Amino acid sequence: MSQVKLSQRSYDIQASPIRKLTPYADEAKKRGIKIYHLNIGQPDIETPGVFWEAIRKYGEKTLKYGPSNGIPQYLESLKRYYNKFGFNVNTEDIFVTTAGSEAIIFSFLAVMETGEEIIIPEPYYTNYNGFATMAGVKIIPLTTYIEEGFKLPTIDKFEEKITSKTRAILLCNPGNPTGTVYTEEELTRVVELANKYNLFLIADEVYREFIYDGMKHTSIMEFPGIEERAIIVDSISKRFSACGARVGCIVSKNKELMEAIMKYGQARLCPPTLEQIGAVALHNLGDDYFKAIYNEYKLRRDTLYEGLTSISDVIVHKPQGAFYMVAKLPVKDTEEFAIWLLKDFNIDGESVMFAPLDGFYGTPGLGKNEVRLAYILNCEDIKKSVHILREGLESYRTVNLNTTL
Amino acid sequence: MSQVKLSQRSYDIQASPIRKLTPYADEAKKRGIKIYHLNIGQPDIETPGVFWEAIRKYGEKTLKYGPSNGIPQYLESLKRYYNKFGFNVNTEDIFVTTAGSEAIIFSFLAVMETGEEIIIPEPYYTNYNGFATMAGVKIIPLTTYIEEGFKLPTIDKFEEKITSKTRAILLCNPGNPTGTVYTEEELTRVVELANKYNLFLIADEVYREFIYDGMKHTSIMEFPGIEERAIIVDSISKRFSACGARVGCIVSKNKELMEAIMKYGQARLCPPTLEQIGAVALHNLGDDYFKAIYNEYKLRRDTLYEGLTSISDVIVHKPQGAFYMVAKLPVKDTEEFAIWLLKDFNIDGESVMFAPLDGFYGTPGLGKNEVRLAYILNCEDIKKSVHILREGLESYRTVNLNTTL
Repeated sequence: MSQVKLSQRSYDIQASPIRKLTPYADEAKKRGIKIYHLNIGQPDIETPGVFWEAIRKYGEKTLKYGPSNGIPQYLESLKRYYNKFGFNVNTEDIFVTTAGSEAIIFSFLAVMETGEEIIIPEPYYTNYNGFATMAGVKIIPLTTYIEEGFKLPTIDKFEEKITSKTRAILLCNPGNPTGTVYTEEELTRVVELANKYNLFLIADEVYREFIYDGMKHTSIMEFPGIEERAIIVDSISKRFSACGARVGCIVSKNKELMEAIMKYGQARLCPPTLEQIGAVALHNLGDDYFKAIYNEYKLRRDTLYEGLTSISDVIVHKPQGAFYMVAKLPVKDTEEFAIWLLKDFNIDGESVMFAPLDGFYGTPGLGKNEVRLAYILNCEDIKKSVHILREGLESYRTVNLNTTL
Repeated sequence: MSQVKLSQRSYDIQASPIRKLTPYADEAKKRGIKIYHLNIGQPDIETPGVFWEAIRKYGEKTLKYGPSNGIPQYLESLKRYYNKFGFNVNTEDIFVTTAGSEAIIFSFLAVMETGEEIIIPEPYYTNYNGFATMAGVKIIPLTTYIEEGFKLPTIDKFEEKITSKTRAILLCNPGNPTGTVYTEEELTRVVELANKYNLFLIADEVYREFIYDGMKHTSIMEFPGIEERAIIVDSISKRFSACGARVGCIVSKNKELMEAIMKYGQARLCPPTLEQIGAVALHNLGDDYFKAIYNEYKLRRDTLYEGLTSISDVIVHKPQGAFYMVAKLPVKDTEEFAIWLLKDFNIDGESVMFAPLDGFYGTPGLGKNEVRLAYILNCEDIKKSVHILREGLESYRTVNLNTTL
């Protein structure tokens, strides 16, 4: 009997760089080590109580299929939420998805055929790779650099990547993992490019509210003349600290696109109902909620930034948005260093975990000495994490002379 | 500025035949007409109270990302559930998905490359078409017939469909839409075929508990020697009347396959947590729950069957499982008839909705005069639905002589 063989894509699909070190962390925990998880964008902030209350009060006796595009009251909430930012959208321009993940997969399927291409500035959210594999499409990475604050490349750099197969550009703004916020001027150039080359422009704006230093978030939905091309993929996970809720959405004024999304969505029937009930309550919270979490995250960012910049030979990009920070460490391979921290190092029974950045690049070989740190823990824990990282680096460079720079 | 174009698959993907008549039903409801929905497998049975209680008691303050493969306590529940049926599975052989839909998509992606083929007896659950489009794979339909009780075709009929691109066979058992339960002998033949041609065997067994007339459900997991090939896709939606929960799973003893599924699953991070908490409680209900719903569904089946067989010129297959019934009506096009029932017919302000069956066939032209009726309403409503159908058919045949047979 021959061995049955999986599809090639099952071998090709990237294992999550954010989660693949988890077995080492689990092993450390078994040995009684406490791990500070800066590797994953899972905030420690409580999901607002109104979310839990709304779900507890849900009175239906049968948990029925919901509408494929989301329950009407949540679509209304989303409409009000986007209108607040000046987006001229109605409920029919919104499709509720099972988290931002499904929003991205559906968008990829809708705008690209198998083998077609999407340009994404790198480093980019690593799970885009998995979604591209699932949709059978190709990500064309366009490198941005820590030394330049991960700013968008000039238009000629984009144009170098455009082929007959290019169908879309994806921008994550504010950026994961970079924390970079694109200016209106940068975005204008990309909008013009999309118009010129007849491309879709997909914007991952799940960190819309996480903007620091008085910067303003500019959405692609604010540009006139881009209505047919603009697709927003969104999620409540980060905004309301509800990562396990699995509620996201697609927003677009392109009617034909939304009809296609409806067909993909009908195949999988509906997104989860209860969490949409909770999300309605979350969207009623208003701006006070965001002000409170804004202050907390800004403090965390500053604490992590000050800590990291005080470590010698570490290069850090100060992010203007989201809750991630990229740092270049004086080691050859940050994955090896990450594993060493989990396996062979601790201070008073504590160690730290981050995400090696090479998995966030599409270009092989890049990011080997970079890491992503999520500032999703309180400042006390961030300070301890920085301390462990500082001491760990020193120790690692002493014992592993050949693997450090 | 040129018009931006969607992917070809966005035009090709089938609109849900179960949901596409919904606008007509909505329109009828606006006119004050009550519609009996036999078109969709949405039971009116209450989701057991333990589900709601478990979710209300959930004490975490932050709804965090869960493990990609499901929360540990639910994996344990599923293991016990499958062990009860004699499946030799452990928690690592189970992967929790966002409903059965995701279980099927992941399975398609894992075993087939773009353009490869899966053989599915038709009529089959229509949403397989959407999942195949998303995965870029091709469903090769193998026709079964109402006159033969939709029994599995002989092996030579399967062999006629096998090409160099065939990678898998999918069986839905008990069948949706047919309600047919495959015997151990029928399944043995397919298992031998899968071994002979080195194919995966995917079994959609979400209706496992819905078996009538003293028949026994045989799972592909019970066959020795099929461990590397067998994949079960499952869901709590029908079993526990929790369609809006979006909790399903994949079960397989193939380690390499489960590693691939983990990678697809990590890309989308995790299935919803709260409903898994509820599902743990559901799996603790035990057999009494199933006995009660069994009796109710059997009564509904018998009521619908007796009703339909009493209408002249209607051919009905008496299902041994699930909660669907296929009937051949004396009209040329059941979709037109369905629309007519919603637009132009009612009895005392009530009408009925079913799913035209042509969308459940992969072979064009088949099923035009067949329908699927879901017996998910109480017997009183089923009797009223049959009455409306009987009178409606008579009326339709009188006013639309050219469209009836």
